Amino acid sequence: MMMMIRSELDSTLSEVDDDERYGLSWRLAVETNNTERPWKTVPLRCYKHVENYMVGGQYQLDMNIIVDQIVFYAKSHIPVPSNKDAWIFDVDDTCISNVPYYKANRFGCEPFDSTMFKAWINKGMCPANPVILRLFKTLIQRGFKVFLVTGRYEETLAKITTDNLHNQGFIGYQRLILRSGEYKGMSAVKYKSSIRKEIENEGYRIWGNVGDQWTDLQGDSLGNRTFKLPNPMYCIS
Amino acid sequence: MMMMIRSELDSTLSEVDDDERYGLSWRLAVETNNTERPWKTVPLRCYKHVENYMVGGQYQLDMNIIVDQIVFYAKSHIPVPSNKDAWIFDVDDTCISNVPYYKANRFGCEPFDSTMFKAWINKGMCPANPVILRLFKTLIQRGFKVFLVTGRYEETLAKITTDNLHNQGFIGYQRLILRSGEYKGMSAVKYKSSIRKEIENEGYRIWGNVGDQWTDLQGDSLGNRTFKLPNPMYCIS
Repeated sequence: MMMMIRSELDSTLSEVDDDERYGLSWRLAVETNNTERPWKTVPLRCYKHVENYMVGGQYQLDMNIIVDQIVFYAKSHIPVPSNKDAWIFDVDDTCISNVPYYKANRFGCEPFDSTMFKAWINKGMCPANPVILRLFKTLIQRGFKVFLVTGRYEETLAKITTDNLHNQGFIGYQRLILRSGEYKGMSAVKYKSSIRKEIENEGYRIWGNVGDQWTDLQGDSLGNRTFKLPNPMYCIS
Repeated sequence: MMMMIRSELDSTLSEVDDDERYGLSWRLAVETNNTERPWKTVPLRCYKHVENYMVGGQYQLDMNIIVDQIVFYAKSHIPVPSNKDAWIFDVDDTCISNVPYYKANRFGCEPFDSTMFKAWINKGMCPANPVILRLFKTLIQRGFKVFLVTGRYEETLAKITTDNLHNQGFIGYQRLILRSGEYKGMSAVKYKSSIRKEIENEGYRIWGNVGDQWTDLQGDSLGNRTFKLPNPMYCIS
């Protein structure tokens, strides 16, 4: 009897271990853009792994090391920025975080529910990503012009987004650009490329481009360097 | 006295845990191309993490999930390849593996020693990456033309590389392209872009481009999709 229980326990532990290892592989594939695009939901067997990753500290550590790299790059390559030296930041899960929403929705294992997600966004309560807020302040303090570029619709979300950014400490950016009517229905890559091109046409040099989605970091006018922040919860096309 | 020992043990365990967490962050930053480029050596505190990753099974699992994605992509997008439908594969740590060499050299924590590395290569004993050999055979069997493109010098390494690939089962590829004299000293990105452009100029469509270095997957004529294989041991510029 004892042996049975022991063996059942071993088998359960081994499944947990297998799921953890699979979760690691799946997340690496997502972060390196090796998966079929766009993927729809987090595989159910990765739920515990993604949950532990997002709230157990590793996500914050991973962000930290990237921000250290960004600050090092900015300091060593552009020691004295001019007023045309720019950075591009994405908004959702770059500057401000939807982790509280995804925490209540099994970290991306549930199919995306746009009504519920809009209700969350409209609360204007996305907390700052503290590591990115530190980066944002550092770059602005050094003299860079920071442009926030988001796929959120201008018509309906301009006010709440501005308010949310401000109440979380994102103050002093050059411009917040939301998706206006002319870009409605356009893919994220095309929309964000057009916006970056416009910024370049105004004479800005884009030194860095920071986002949690590969679609933030593909296309044209990418900037001198791109930086991929982790996000194993969802994928935008 | 007991308390002292206990507390020392806790502190050692906590350092191990910190190094493991740092190793995870560092490796993710490398694989997503967020680090300063090219990085020279693996940080010493990541040694145990990288060793465990490379030989403890996770590296093979990570390769497996990527190859599954590649096979899925190839089957669903190009069900019946023509004789101009091509794939590009890198050689070192893509088709054949230098893990035995790096195992003897602290997995990249030692500065790169080109003399010792050349001596290893010249043995012609790099083992196949079994997961990539499976992919290679699957693509060829489906009718794709596979081009192997390597930064190894043609003048000195053509024979040993051909022999090594063959003795490890890489048979049936369309062409093995090594770095000829005209490309000497050129960056990997420029050299590999030129080669891919030539392949396209011959009328081939590059559907996929598979390599362990970001320099395999940047530049021009990249192909319809690129796939980044893991390699936390070294970085080529």
